[in-house]
Amino acid sequence: MSRALNFNAGPASLPFAALARARDELIDFDGSGMSVMEHSHRGKVYEKVHHEATALVAELLELPKDYDVLFVQGGASMAFAQIPMNFLEAGKTADYIVTGAWGEKAVSEARAMSKAANGGEVHMAASTQQDKTYVRVPRQDELSLTPGAAYVHCTSNETIHGVEYALGPSTPFPKVQAPLICDMSSDILGRRVDMTQFDVVYGGAQKNIGPSGVTIVIAKKSMLDRGRKDLPAIFQYRTHAENKSLYNTPPTFGIYLVRNTLAWLKSEGGVAAIEARNVKKAAALYDTIDGSGGFYRCPVDKACRSIMNVVWRLPTPELEEAFVKEAEAQQMIGLKGHRSVGGIRASIYNAVEPAWVDALAAFMKDFAKRRG
Amino acid sequence: MSRALNFNAGPASLPFAALARARDELIDFDGSGMSVMEHSHRGKVYEKVHHEATALVAELLELPKDYDVLFVQGGASMAFAQIPMNFLEAGKTADYIVTGAWGEKAVSEARAMSKAANGGEVHMAASTQQDKTYVRVPRQDELSLTPGAAYVHCTSNETIHGVEYALGPSTPFPKVQAPLICDMSSDILGRRVDMTQFDVVYGGAQKNIGPSGVTIVIAKKSMLDRGRKDLPAIFQYRTHAENKSLYNTPPTFGIYLVRNTLAWLKSEGGVAAIEARNVKKAAALYDTIDGSGGFYRCPVDKACRSIMNVVWRLPTPELEEAFVKEAEAQQMIGLKGHRSVGGIRASIYNAVEPAWVDALAAFMKDFAKRRG
Ligand SMILES: Cc1ncc(COP(=O)(O)O)c(C=O)c1O
Ligand SMILES: Cc1ncc(COP(=O)(O)O)c(C=O)c1O
Ligand SMILES: [Mg+2]
Ligand SMILES: [Mg+2]
Ligand SMILES: [Mg+2]
Ligand SMILES: [Mg+2]
Repeated sequence: MSRALNFNAGPASLPFAALARARDELIDFDGSGMSVMEHSHRGKVYEKVHHEATALVAELLELPKDYDVLFVQGGASMAFAQIPMNFLEAGKTADYIVTGAWGEKAVSEARAMSKAANGGEVHMAASTQQDKTYVRVPRQDELSLTPGAAYVHCTSNETIHGVEYALGPSTPFPKVQAPLICDMSSDILGRRVDMTQFDVVYGGAQKNIGPSGVTIVIAKKSMLDRGRKDLPAIFQYRTHAENKSLYNTPPTFGIYLVRNTLAWLKSEGGVAAIEARNVKKAAALYDTIDGSGGFYRCPVDKACRSIMNVVWRLPTPELEEAFVKEAEAQQMIGLKGHRSVGGIRASIYNAVEPAWVDALAAFMKDFAKRRG
Repeated sequence: MSRALNFNAGPASLPFAALARARDELIDFDGSGMSVMEHSHRGKVYEKVHHEATALVAELLELPKDYDVLFVQGGASMAFAQIPMNFLEAGKTADYIVTGAWGEKAVSEARAMSKAANGGEVHMAASTQQDKTYVRVPRQDELSLTPGAAYVHCTSNETIHGVEYALGPSTPFPKVQAPLICDMSSDILGRRVDMTQFDVVYGGAQKNIGPSGVTIVIAKKSMLDRGRKDLPAIFQYRTHAENKSLYNTPPTFGIYLVRNTLAWLKSEGGVAAIEARNVKKAAALYDTIDGSGGFYRCPVDKACRSIMNVVWRLPTPELEEAFVKEAEAQQMIGLKGHRSVGGIRASIYNAVEPAWVDALAAFMKDFAKRRG
């Protein structure tokens, strides 16, 4: 088998070691005579896997003890509605900072949820939309924050536009007073970030964490305590925290694959080591774009360029189509930009091998020489 | 590897053929150089699997064209809240027929949902609770139905108590006027049922359909049309129907395993064939219980005994504990009754081999002879 050079945006490439482990023990987990997915979620065999996955998230992200790690279902899209359901009480306002299409969707679901379930107001605290697209995050002085807001919501990396906040150990998120909630679907665990500045972080697993079908929610215990209590139990994040994500049947095999993926990340040296690798991978592509004499063009402000989703344009849609087609013939998969924006996008999450990125950069140079 | 005799209630045993197929193609699906879980949910390779799984559900259940099959997330527990959210409008009443613990939970989540989101009334149309447990379904004359109800909700098989409606091709559900909604988590696809008497059927996949993490919803298109429109898009079942369960990222690998599981069921002869096998499996256990001279005792009324979850008691809790322990030593797994009721439960879903049930019946006879 030759492994595809997989640049999918999500579901995306997973570490080969995590997949091979799953294959090797698929029909007989740990000598039990059963697949891990045939085990009861209330039994010792599965519970060990479950708690290992939870503990790996906390360890790799260096979460303090006052944070809970939850595995739930529904994707980040479910969280778009469930976050305001839990945390936007009547009489309060939630501030949304929008830097791309996912932030827009979060706003629209929050508005609908709040109206349907007697919640508070949704306020657009900032939007960097310009000419129907997004190329940057807002400056501190562009934020119109509500005093006493229920929370501030942001999207750390906008997967479709390749627009990312420059977060790092000494580069915090812009200053806000209210609890900070972040959709970190597409960059969580890809670089070092001080998680203690966030009160809630959520994301679909299908980029850096595992397969689709698992949703991660990381929250300060004090924030979970404040959540609305008059909701069905299943919708209260509190319920899942109290039950260690075993309130109802969790996606057991998905969580097992999260375990495999995070065990791999740990064995590679953790987040600091993967960040160094990710930064180099991204630089290889951005350097190729910027050094192409204008043949390739990245629309994103240099300070906001994502190290997870690299987007660029070619001179014409025809050339973009030819680029994707030729790349596919060389087993480079998933390079077509999101249908809403066009162009090219290379998603280079943790599991994407540096050698694949080098091959893509080489192909870009060759293509530019031939067609430029 | 010797395969365990798996009587888990869910997650439960899966067909070995479905698992072996998953193992064989785990790291390279269809020569693509990628696992199926690494494929985009918007790509041709995955979409084929997705639509095959959907089509198999419709084919095996003989659904007419005016029904939609959805794969969503959250488990049946999410549906407990999402069903009233969608279908219980203000000014209307929903009638709940309760025959066990899962029906109770459906009522309690519906009450909370309705209050939180301005829905209608929840009415207990019948409950067969007696001495803190459930041993039967209600008679037609016990149903207190509301004229013009938004819907009637029932649980076709109560997994914990082993209490099932005697549904069949010529044995319909008791007569109701309003749309009929059924939690069929633990018996769907286990026997022939006229699905056209139901307007919505839902269930977690982790019994007869596949792994946990996939929730199935089967609904009449006209019913979906009637659902509340002022909800976040993710909560409207309509959204998932319009997008063929691809509104947001679905649990792709889970749905792939559903495909494998249902392909196996079809190859075994479909629902009629599996029903014949299931009826024999259940009879082997009930006959052993009834023929034990009172050592084993099944509390459930004969007409309501589940062919999926067979529950019974032994003379003392100590004997029950010894029974479970000895069985486990013979690799018979999952026989402990639900923690809320105690006793013994053998879940004998579609993938549980007749030979395993025969081995269990033989063990029961031997145990009774030694300890009776
Ligand atoms: C930043 C971001 N938020 C939300 C989503 C939606 O996630 P899901 O499909 O899991 O609902 C995505 C999906 O790509 C995303 O990238
Ligand atoms: C009949 C029935 N309904 C609902 C549920 C809850 O399902 P889930 O854990 O998928 O939310 C179960 C689980 O066993 C069940 O058997
Ligand atoms: Mg995306
Ligand atoms: Mg703060
Ligand atoms: Mg159960
Ligand atoms: Mg009817």
